Amino acid sequence: MAVNSRPSRPVLGQNQYGKAENRVVRIVRDGATHHIKDLNVSVSLSGDMDDVHYSGSNANVLPTDTTKNTVYAFAKEHGIESAEQFGIHLARHFVTSQEPIHRARIRIEEYAWERIETSGEARHSFVRKGQETRLAQITFDGETWEVVSGLKDLVVMNSTNSEFWGYVKDTYTTLPEAYDRILATQVSGRWRFNWTGDEETAPDWDTSYEQVKKHMLEAFAETYSLSLQQTLYAMGARIIDNRGEIDEVRFSLPNKHHFLVDLEPFGLKNDNEVYFAADRPYGLIEATILRDGCEAHIPVDLTNL
Amino acid sequence: MAVNSRPSRPVLGQNQYGKAENRVVRIVRDGATHHIKDLNVSVSLSGDMDDVHYSGSNANVLPTDTTKNTVYAFAKEHGIESAEQFGIHLARHFVTSQEPIHRARIRIEEYAWERIETSGEARHSFVRKGQETRLAQITFDGETWEVVSGLKDLVVMNSTNSEFWGYVKDTYTTLPEAYDRILATQVSGRWRFNWTGDEETAPDWDTSYEQVKKHMLEAFAETYSLSLQQTLYAMGARIIDNRGEIDEVRFSLPNKHHFLVDLEPFGLKNDNEVYFAADRPYGLIEATILRDGCEAHIPVDLTNL
Amino acid sequence: MAVNSRPSRPVLGQNQYGKAENRVVRIVRDGATHHIKDLNVSVSLSGDMDDVHYSGSNANVLPTDTTKNTVYAFAKEHGIESAEQFGIHLARHFVTSQEPIHRARIRIEEYAWERIETSGEARHSFVRKGQETRLAQITFDGETWEVVSGLKDLVVMNSTNSEFWGYVKDTYTTLPEAYDRILATQVSGRWRFNWTGDEETAPDWDTSYEQVKKHMLEAFAETYSLSLQQTLYAMGARIIDNRGEIDEVRFSLPNKHHFLVDLEPFGLKNDNEVYFAADRPYGLIEATILRDGCEAHIPVDLTNL
Amino acid sequence: MAVNSRPSRPVLGQNQYGKAENRVVRIVRDGATHHIKDLNVSVSLSGDMDDVHYSGSNANVLPTDTTKNTVYAFAKEHGIESAEQFGIHLARHFVTSQEPIHRARIRIEEYAWERIETSGEARHSFVRKGQETRLAQITFDGETWEVVSGLKDLVVMNSTNSEFWGYVKDTYTTLPEAYDRILATQVSGRWRFNWTGDEETAPDWDTSYEQVKKHMLEAFAETYSLSLQQTLYAMGARIIDNRGEIDEVRFSLPNKHHFLVDLEPFGLKNDNEVYFAADRPYGLIEATILRDGCEAHIPVDLTNL
Repeated sequence: MAVNSRPSRPVLGQNQYGKAENRVVRIVRDGATHHIKDLNVSVSLSGDMDDVHYSGSNANVLPTDTTKNTVYAFAKEHGIESAEQFGIHLARHFVTSQEPIHRARIRIEEYAWERIETSGEARHSFVRKGQETRLAQITFDGETWEVVSGLKDLVVMNSTNSEFWGYVKDTYTTLPEAYDRILATQVSGRWRFNWTGDEETAPDWDTSYEQVKKHMLEAFAETYSLSLQQTLYAMGARIIDNRGEIDEVRFSLPNKHHFLVDLEPFGLKNDNEVYFAADRPYGLIEATILRDGCEAHIPVDLTNL
Repeated sequence: MAVNSRPSRPVLGQNQYGKAENRVVRIVRDGATHHIKDLNVSVSLSGDMDDVHYSGSNANVLPTDTTKNTVYAFAKEHGIESAEQFGIHLARHFVTSQEPIHRARIRIEEYAWERIETSGEARHSFVRKGQETRLAQITFDGETWEVVSGLKDLVVMNSTNSEFWGYVKDTYTTLPEAYDRILATQVSGRWRFNWTGDEETAPDWDTSYEQVKKHMLEAFAETYSLSLQQTLYAMGARIIDNRGEIDEVRFSLPNKHHFLVDLEPFGLKNDNEVYFAADRPYGLIEATILRDGCEAHIPVDLTNL
Repeated sequence: MAVNSRPSRPVLGQNQYGKAENRVVRIVRDGATHHIKDLNVSVSLSGDMDDVHYSGSNANVLPTDTTKNTVYAFAKEHGIESAEQFGIHLARHFVTSQEPIHRARIRIEEYAWERIETSGEARHSFVRKGQETRLAQITFDGETWEVVSGLKDLVVMNSTNSEFWGYVKDTYTTLPEAYDRILATQVSGRWRFNWTGDEETAPDWDTSYEQVKKHMLEAFAETYSLSLQQTLYAMGARIIDNRGEIDEVRFSLPNKHHFLVDLEPFGLKNDNEVYFAADRPYGLIEATILRDGCEAHIPVDLTNL
Repeated sequence: MAVNSRPSRPVLGQNQYGKAENRVVRIVRDGATHHIKDLNVSVSLSGDMDDVHYSGSNANVLPTDTTKNTVYAFAKEHGIESAEQFGIHLARHFVTSQEPIHRARIRIEEYAWERIETSGEARHSFVRKGQETRLAQITFDGETWEVVSGLKDLVVMNSTNSEFWGYVKDTYTTLPEAYDRILATQVSGRWRFNWTGDEETAPDWDTSYEQVKKHMLEAFAETYSLSLQQTLYAMGARIIDNRGEIDEVRFSLPNKHHFLVDLEPFGLKNDNEVYFAADRPYGLIEATILRDGCEAHIPVDLTNL
């Protein structure tokens, strides 16, 4: 197909738009005791949007500024019970209130806080936990609901019980086999619920999150690892085995290499004690684990927002 | 330990692994005149990898360390003519040299350098251009080639010729209509070639990149914009119309809001002169533009690596 | 002073060099129970370095690569009892072992880890705490020791008990007074010990750190705040009052604004419930608090490395 | 000085406050041709601020919100001729208009834009250059002016004409001497003007900036380097020698290591062609170069804002 021979106009494909990264903090005051929810909410809408692309007519476009306002108004009107529940309210609203909008996807990051302990009675002082960022993605097209939860930036390490050997060796292989290495990774994970939209049967989203994190960490700690792939599968399988509400898990696990430093030039023996923590390059291991008979929906490349 | 009695084992789905972010710099010495290629190369391999996930057997696993070595060795053996050509060499190698590997995806970031101008004859001194980062992704499964090029972090602005009005107004709409606003975005774009693997008919990848960037910038500058969606479509259509080697373009365009500052409290009139450049939230406009009759392959969410 | 009137050569002033950001992880194996220290160590050396600047003679230059090797070798030879003690070993070594080196400054970031709890006996599995980064800076010039500890990225919030009113109002003032606002900041702090190098009287560095953090958080939580400056002073004074080993504290506290969202356009009353967490601009409040009679040594602008 | 023996109250030392990172974009419309200035402005004020720290009285405090408003109002009232000139207006205003304020420090980042070239007449379309960020810091205490300009994130490389040998070798030295290496750095520089506040004799700030950058790049390119220190000194001396308006220069130059990859295991000879660009650790070389007879004012550790 050569330049200048195209008879027809370029065609619009998949498109979506909205306001990204609306930072909303909601305080609930239970007398002197306060509670925080701290979210970063991104809205993506799709629908009858040909005209705005082809001609610039905004007749079907709910402004992104309006979607931002809706996030803040809903934090008041509906409260924020959980990230997932908040996203469900928003997604339903956009699809059901505006005819040209056929699909809404709400992505949420949640930052956890804990109380500052004091001898006094201060119940309104908090410190950000700072560990992982919790994630939730709610998609609704008017009929079908999809809820995917997840987390990122959870850094874990096993200082032993990890080996790597028996691999393929080709012309370019120089890596020595390892029988006792550090295994460290920064977990990015997503898991899809089999919930279909019935409010009666909705999981307790917060409990589910805590349990998934617990099983994931336990599987990481308890797996004697012959490869990061094996550990990844164990983490996903542990979730599927223990959480009936989840049908699919995907992980993206960078192998954060810790190289044993050669101290022999200095007359020292490094008996698995001193490591160099490298930045780049890093191994990157990614896989999906599915409940038997279920289909994969989570994209191959995980994104944050 | 089962919730709900599932009898069967969790199943492995899509998976891939490799070494990410191999930073390779290649110097070509043409007498006293040097040339630089500066890449960040990520390798992802897929194939017969059930065993390594289920049992930890690495018998089919080419180590990620080996894929790193291959990147550096190929920079010597094949040189780096262009990011795309380098990725083609690598993808072909992994798939054809290792039976258990059925698919290779090579992702490359390229950083541009220009010569430092001096009165003398220094031909080996460079300053990084620092504008956009060029991207290339090459995928090969033994039969089918897919080459997607792109860029990120190209920041552009029109200081006039942008309006936004005539949109849907609902309960949560407060945005006033705008008849002369700044339109600014940080372009993230990807475009897919219709090249099918025949070396004879391969595009000149570097020329193609420069031309795509030129058309994209021209379309941005020349479009009188009634919405960022319209500008996005114009940018993609310009590429499809002018570059026969490309069948699909996808953009992710954050609307980098520049808000006119209200100076009336200080007795000043702000005649579209002074703006506050906001960080978050931002509008996010994403769409695919296709050559008529072609299918979309580029994922909905763009990722960098 | 005009161009071309300078009769003499430009003069070298303060200079320092070394290897920055050496990432060292040290595992101590107490039977099956492992312990981690995870540091980022930066070395800066000063001394008789005129020649290397003026003529490129490296005769007095210990290579930065050697300083890196020393960090790793010392992690084995001396262990890492605490960040401060490790820095003391390194600083003493560089100044006393190389005549041209007159001063060494060691800067350390430390990342905290906690054990993953499992029902089993895994004592070698860790998750990064992810809250603040601990800092230490040790300087030695052959005679005088200076130890400054600190932290960064500790995010705290009071959801009430903060006011701001009674301030100066000029032509450009539009801010309404606030009688109940959120006060949030990301603490960056440094505190200087009065320790003079006598090993017998050295503080327990880890205990000191934990106590300083505790006092700082308590002061933040317990101070009814009329300005962030008042809270900052209370935090510093609490440390000086309770920790006799510390003579000087400096804080850099960004006022992470949480703006009450105006929900009236939607017929909703926002009774200090829903906030927009802004990124930029932010207030920035910086001050030093000193034990009476002591001099300030910590620079006005805090830096991380 | 032991715990519990302090009879007196902790004392307030150096302090400053203001609004940081005010992002201001100013468009000047010269008919159809537009011009952009794009700044990030941070204000720090000092003065009679004991009360606000000790008791929370804001009677002497000009709100940081007001300093933000002033930045935007001044962009209209005075325009933005150059970053330095804009900072001079602001610093003078704060110190002369508010009695309790004794000192103002304005820090500015400037982002450069260039026009998008089109065949048409579009004179209002821009692309961000994306190379270095320009910096300016203006300090005024009612009597004395100090202007320091600078830049950061200018990445440069010499692919030859760099050696490193003849250095000190101790027990921990393993580095082989190098007779032809890549020398690359990310320049962070600051330079202080000898201007004393007389508007008649003020330098042309923009011309000065361009010339300093030119001399710096030329010195980097033209210096046959035996050490990064030597190159650093040459860069600073070139500026002092050529720019009479500048008395002091300080650089912080990370040695961005490019390691020659060992290709011998693959039967390949790496003749200074293929390099691994490392992230951490990096050498860090910092020094001040002064006009003979002048004193150093720029702090040892450079900070951005």
